[in-house]
Amino acid sequence: MTPDQIAELDRADPLASFRDRFDLPDGVIYLDGNSLGALPKATAARVQSVVREQWGTDLIRSWNSHDWIGAPRRLGDKIARLIGAGAGEVICADSTSINVFKALSACLQLAPERSTILSETGNFPTDAYMMEGLSKLTDGHVQQKLVASDAIADHLDDNVAALLLTHTHYKTGRLHDMSALTAAAHEAGIPVIWDLSHSAGAMPVDLNACGADFAVGCGYKYLNGGPGAPAFLFAAKRHHDKVFPALSGWLGHKAPFAFSDHYEAGHGIDRFQCGTPGILGMAALEVGLDLMLHADMQAIRSKSQALGDLFIERVEARCPQFELVSPRDCTGRGSQVSIAHKEGYAIMQALIDRGVIGDFRAPDILRFGFTPLYTRFRDAADAVDILADIMAQDSWTAPQYAVRGAVT
Amino acid sequence: MTPDQIAELDRADPLASFRDRFDLPDGVIYLDGNSLGALPKATAARVQSVVREQWGTDLIRSWNSHDWIGAPRRLGDKIARLIGAGAGEVICADSTSINVFKALSACLQLAPERSTILSETGNFPTDAYMMEGLSKLTDGHVQQKLVASDAIADHLDDNVAALLLTHTHYKTGRLHDMSALTAAAHEAGIPVIWDLSHSAGAMPVDLNACGADFAVGCGYKYLNGGPGAPAFLFAAKRHHDKVFPALSGWLGHKAPFAFSDHYEAGHGIDRFQCGTPGILGMAALEVGLDLMLHADMQAIRSKSQALGDLFIERVEARCPQFELVSPRDCTGRGSQVSIAHKEGYAIMQALIDRGVIGDFRAPDILRFGFTPLYTRFRDAADAVDILADIMAQDSWTAPQYAVRGAVT
Repeated sequence: MTPDQIAELDRADPLASFRDRFDLPDGVIYLDGNSLGALPKATAARVQSVVREQWGTDLIRSWNSHDWIGAPRRLGDKIARLIGAGAGEVICADSTSINVFKALSACLQLAPERSTILSETGNFPTDAYMMEGLSKLTDGHVQQKLVASDAIADHLDDNVAALLLTHTHYKTGRLHDMSALTAAAHEAGIPVIWDLSHSAGAMPVDLNACGADFAVGCGYKYLNGGPGAPAFLFAAKRHHDKVFPALSGWLGHKAPFAFSDHYEAGHGIDRFQCGTPGILGMAALEVGLDLMLHADMQAIRSKSQALGDLFIERVEARCPQFELVSPRDCTGRGSQVSIAHKEGYAIMQALIDRGVIGDFRAPDILRFGFTPLYTRFRDAADAVDILADIMAQDSWTAPQYAVRGAVT
Repeated sequence: MTPDQIAELDRADPLASFRDRFDLPDGVIYLDGNSLGALPKATAARVQSVVREQWGTDLIRSWNSHDWIGAPRRLGDKIARLIGAGAGEVICADSTSINVFKALSACLQLAPERSTILSETGNFPTDAYMMEGLSKLTDGHVQQKLVASDAIADHLDDNVAALLLTHTHYKTGRLHDMSALTAAAHEAGIPVIWDLSHSAGAMPVDLNACGADFAVGCGYKYLNGGPGAPAFLFAAKRHHDKVFPALSGWLGHKAPFAFSDHYEAGHGIDRFQCGTPGILGMAALEVGLDLMLHADMQAIRSKSQALGDLFIERVEARCPQFELVSPRDCTGRGSQVSIAHKEGYAIMQALIDRGVIGDFRAPDILRFGFTPLYTRFRDAADAVDILADIMAQDSWTAPQYAVRGAVT
């Protein structure tokens, strides 16, 4: 594709105007929005107003007057619209890991005679780790089982209390068939928990159309909520009343301000709240959500696929040293492209030095995320040109690129 | 005490200069820092810099370059200095409720043959609620027991796996004798968890001198960390290696960025991390901590006691309609004074309308918190004058004060 053709893609992009709503540093091609979304321009002023006016001036009264107390539900309802959930089915709270724990323990209550929680090997590890902690806590009564991705269907037996899967694989970008796997699990009476960390905001998701039971996800990737933004939990309405939350904190109580000695689970999704919400994080995330709700999710998906296809085509044409790790077929791929090279770490450092920010995942994966609200076609093309240049010049062999930092 | 004498107290106050380091609204006497601490002047700029420079410009690189990844440990070490803990014994993370769960489940591992978790009735309810969830999760194997405050010593038997107590009672301000109760529990082989939500930053606390096992606490009260600030967890060093955290999220892993399928608990206190920390909340809390670390904790305690004594003396002299709920002896009282009146809700609303912000706790308690870094003696005195005026004029009987909001 010629530079003119690429420029034409950007001109024709129906989402092009969204880029202007983000603060992006000069000289950087940011392809890591799947790890930390970029800063919306409106966020700084909103956070400042929450700090100065709401906290500083209105102080404790803001719990009512600025509806801080309603933030987990209000943001949850906004997230619901992005993932095919209904109002009152999503709560914005805690971290993804904590929400995995809530969902797993809820499933164990739905099927108390079952004791296996099933997931796949090679998944983003916090899902498996939370299963391990739960297993220990129940003295091994609950057992986790990790099987290869393509063997899941063979393990949907009548001892499985929950199937926990990540919709878009964090490393490869491979998509699971949410509808088919949920249906297969339901046939065996198994509730399904979908981790949407790399899907929410990146593509249409329709939890209720799939009949999903629970879902969790992350606020700081495609939702652009800022570093460590609050996460979310979806619970299908039909399950709400059946669950006594394992993390039964005071804000999930039916009447938190009655301060009674005994817990009574709150109405509907409210019971999945636990402690006091972090209001600064909520404020930043709400800006990201409001921005995303103005975009057409189908347009996001189409552009994301086209960006990925362009990137793959150019890498294969110009950088034959890399192996494609992500699915080539864009219908089975999330909004990222991963390529492998045994010197991946050093190559990614060299890229970052040249202003192309992706990330590295051990042992050999270079990961590039495409965030259609601010990634242009020329960014995807230029990134490959810079990568090709680095490979041609062997500039990644400079000694400083070999030293690994704490976070990569 | 005459106005001149009160002015003299403020002139002689060694902490007087700290008030200038807070943004306090005009016309307000803020006596609710025990619910939400006031805004330090340095916070807005710090948060703004984290949003604009760290997130906006440096993006994902800030996990290393601005040490976001080290925030839970770095802030934990600062909190440790305020509560008599050592470096590496406190982690700043999650909410108080979640940290209660972590501590309770840790105790159950220290004494696996025991199954009762003991606390007191009338405690801040999230502590008891978290016990209930844990009990359900273990199918009733773990049982919570709530007994009256003065009966705790009678229930320290050899089936108790954990004693969970709040050091300063949220409603009355009564202090437990941390040293004596910890010793009594240890004699029965019981680890103790102290909830320091209303103590940290309000008075000297010496966890290690008492031999405490675990502690939790809140960042948004006396630590001035902002609404819903991250909480903290203390675990005595001697217990670290014995605990497999129940909430075993990826950031508590020994090598989080190895993304291995199986959990290996991180070094020391690190294992009590779970998910990704909320960086905006962390940034605001760090400003509050840095400010507090400049103050002398013994001076804070002395002033806090004197403020409470002055307030009680004047209420009893001028407002005989109220019953004192807090201990009269300041050595047994936290940094708050609670008084009761059956029309407490309406009276508090009338006070707030006159610029005196305390809070109401059902059924009949008016609660006034004294935060020595910014509360002046004249504030305590003026608040009582306004209260006396409201009572003399019956102005609390205006109909608008009878309607209860969601949060009070």
